[in-house]
Amino acid sequence: MERVPSELVAFAHRLADAAGEIQRRWFRTPLAVDTKADASPVTAADREAEALLRELVTRHRPEDGVLGEEHGRERLDAEWVWVFDPIDGTKSFLAGRPLFVTLIGLLHEGRPVLGVIDQAILGERWLGVAGRPTLFNGRPCRTRPCPELAQAFLACTSPQMFAHRNERAGFERVLSRVRHAIFGGDAYNSGLLALGFLDLVVEADLEPYDVLPLVPVIEGAGGRLTDWQGRPPNLASDQRMVAAGDARLHSLALALLAQA
Amino acid sequence: MERVPSELVAFAHRLADAAGEIQRRWFRTPLAVDTKADASPVTAADREAEALLRELVTRHRPEDGVLGEEHGRERLDAEWVWVFDPIDGTKSFLAGRPLFVTLIGLLHEGRPVLGVIDQAILGERWLGVAGRPTLFNGRPCRTRPCPELAQAFLACTSPQMFAHRNERAGFERVLSRVRHAIFGGDAYNSGLLALGFLDLVVEADLEPYDVLPLVPVIEGAGGRLTDWQGRPPNLASDQRMVAAGDARLHSLALALLAQA
Repeated sequence: MERVPSELVAFAHRLADAAGEIQRRWFRTPLAVDTKADASPVTAADREAEALLRELVTRHRPEDGVLGEEHGRERLDAEWVWVFDPIDGTKSFLAGRPLFVTLIGLLHEGRPVLGVIDQAILGERWLGVAGRPTLFNGRPCRTRPCPELAQAFLACTSPQMFAHRNERAGFERVLSRVRHAIFGGDAYNSGLLALGFLDLVVEADLEPYDVLPLVPVIEGAGGRLTDWQGRPPNLASDQRMVAAGDARLHSLALALLAQA
Repeated sequence: MERVPSELVAFAHRLADAAGEIQRRWFRTPLAVDTKADASPVTAADREAEALLRELVTRHRPEDGVLGEEHGRERLDAEWVWVFDPIDGTKSFLAGRPLFVTLIGLLHEGRPVLGVIDQAILGERWLGVAGRPTLFNGRPCRTRPCPELAQAFLACTSPQMFAHRNERAGFERVLSRVRHAIFGGDAYNSGLLALGFLDLVVEADLEPYDVLPLVPVIEGAGGRLTDWQGRPPNLASDQRMVAAGDARLHSLALALLAQA
């Protein structure tokens, strides 16, 4: 496994710091909300944060590629590609819930090798780097064992994300078998899974920049993250993910989802 | 409207402080989880917090009544009755999400006249006292105007709380008409409504101690909270609530829910 150069880790922290500064400035202020083509909300805070992250990449890493939510894609064939969602959980941000996060991911030749999940209001940051233990605020963290669905604590952002009937049916097969389920949370749920407080995260209707940054965080904490067919996420991935803290649980959930 | 004596307001703060201390001690520690008859989780933290609140009431306000989640009811015919849920949002607590709250309510001759919503990890406290503006961390807060469903931001803890088909249909009528919806959050959603970041909260499967503390907080911020038939909550209330920051929105939501 290739080593991620330390200056790239430092740069990922710098990107997360920059996004967090903007979020702290706008959080719980009255914000005009636009509605995008997919009916999801977007604000000046999302746009300002992404523009700043792009500017930082262009200035300091001009040869690297970029994929972001609001302003499209550039140089996706570069050796290193940054993917980011400056505010994952825009609805949480708008509602005043401090669970939205900044997601920063780095791909090396198409494979996710670094991920940051940052909650700027709470001062919480997860860092995953391929081949290293995931760090939560600088200290290693681990998922917890959970070999069976009947013991599992499932998180899902919204039942509205399952647009197709077979997706909803797949999700409901899992939902009906777990011990507890909690809704809301967006990518923050994957951070809690890496800390060992959730066992399973099932989501749909995502984009590559929502998923790729999570992979090194979850894998470095001992978990697994794939799409609903069990494939590792990549830039061309579909929009559905299943993450589990325990590989046995991942297989069981996958068996119920793969039919969808 | 009767004035709430200032020593009762001080005592409500003291109860919230005591519960918060216990929550901060247990939050994000490995906790054994029991499952109650209604399939909801309960932990040692819930039980310890409620036992302490009851002990404080018995010691300092021996003539007052008490209604809590874990240990039942005493002296509900007293002039003053305390109702509390020491950890509202036990699933959030277990998942490591700092959105669970302590709810403290005070009834005078059966009417809710004081409510506290406290988030001990974030250091956020809402205080509502009948006839006074609601305070958020000591400063007055207000709901925002939102006269129409098509502009409204709705919150609901879980689609699983609508056990009966007609309840679910009522909720889905509202859901299909609002601008945005967010899931999760429990009683914290009512705090965000009082701050003007959400417009509508629709819940079912609640108990009086989940709802009564919210009434003075929401009314003192300019909002309305009733059951799905438009009745003010009381100790014998049913388990469904609709809260809105704008009375016009409340009426519109009620028209869609009252058939359920």
